[in-house]
Amino acid sequence: MVTTTRPERGGETRELLLTTAERLFAEHGVAAVSSRQISEAAGQANNSAVGYHIGTKTDVVLAIVRRHSAPMERRRAEMLATLTEASGLHEWIACLVRPVTGHLADLGNPTWYARFAAQITTDPALRQLVTDETTASPSLRQTLEGIFLLVPALPEQVRRERGDMMRHLLVHMCAERERALHEGTPTPHPTWDAAATGLIDAVTGLWLAPVSAPGSP
Amino acid sequence: MVTTTRPERGGETRELLLTTAERLFAEHGVAAVSSRQISEAAGQANNSAVGYHIGTKTDVVLAIVRRHSAPMERRRAEMLATLTEASGLHEWIACLVRPVTGHLADLGNPTWYARFAAQITTDPALRQLVTDETTASPSLRQTLEGIFLLVPALPEQVRRERGDMMRHLLVHMCAERERALHEGTPTPHPTWDAAATGLIDAVTGLWLAPVSAPGSP
Repeated sequence: MVTTTRPERGGETRELLLTTAERLFAEHGVAAVSSRQISEAAGQANNSAVGYHIGTKTDVVLAIVRRHSAPMERRRAEMLATLTEASGLHEWIACLVRPVTGHLADLGNPTWYARFAAQITTDPALRQLVTDETTASPSLRQTLEGIFLLVPALPEQVRRERGDMMRHLLVHMCAERERALHEGTPTPHPTWDAAATGLIDAVTGLWLAPVSAPGSP
Repeated sequence: MVTTTRPERGGETRELLLTTAERLFAEHGVAAVSSRQISEAAGQANNSAVGYHIGTKTDVVLAIVRRHSAPMERRRAEMLATLTEASGLHEWIACLVRPVTGHLADLGNPTWYARFAAQITTDPALRQLVTDETTASPSLRQTLEGIFLLVPALPEQVRRERGDMMRHLLVHMCAERERALHEGTPTPHPTWDAAATGLIDAVTGLWLAPVSAPGSP
């Protein structure tokens, strides 16, 4: 009996450590929080609980990312399966945005993931790590390819730039809404669903914007 | 003689403390850096130099903001003076973006201000403070009014939301470019001027994007 409950307890501790780490990273930034602080905040007598149950701080970040990317990946795959040849840019961009907002809606207030993601994307080393992880996601790759096919021909650097802009908007608008919900301050939209629609509209406009010639005012 | 050099030395120390604070805030976030750390990093023997020369940490943040807002304000007023009745949305948005990018270009690499601004805008209390400060800027208010006049009629919450999006794009694209220049990693555009054009194009598209009916996919 004891041998079967042990791994169970270990799994619970790991989950508790990840949940605690996500909140601390979201509030203070990844660089400002040590593994020792995570262990302590999770009420672990052993200060090296993070090292024992998860690994390095990078391992913790990746484990948090994976905990959320799996359900978002499932949502995105389901949405992609409903698209047809006739689907427009708006619908393809929805496949990028709604898996994130739908996941946050499902988790219920308070969530920390959107603020955690905002912290990650402003850290160049961590962002690269997470980008490598997410570009391995078949559903995300398929979504980006779908978007690129429907966007007018853009110089390669503009395409990269607008991809960066889309990422900033998704990450920071979700983080800002998550914080407002948590703190009870006003938000532009009543639901995550409505917030997603606002984002999809704006991102569609961003991709369709004409490109000025270099040196124009 | 001594009485005339004293305030001069004090002014130099104040400038040194502000420059140091800006770099530390940009790198680590405002919450993670204490006044004591700023004094130490600026090589001040007296740990309370920040308190003596500037005041609270909030005073430091505001002093840094004002140091940059004054030259940006001048640039914006000059640009606004060249606009006419015939000026389009693109030119009005340029009055929002180019004073920032032009100021960063003038400062020369490395700058810290864009990353500092990104840290400020993710801190709700500080952002409110800075917003109160900048909405007092006549040139910025005039620019936003010009933009709103040329944008199609939008529901009030969508206008606020797209204003938030414009702020996120300006702040985070500038911060990302500043970091890339500092670290010598690739950027989508060769100059701040070209980066501004990319931003103005995309923000114009964002404002002109049609608004979906609530509940649409």
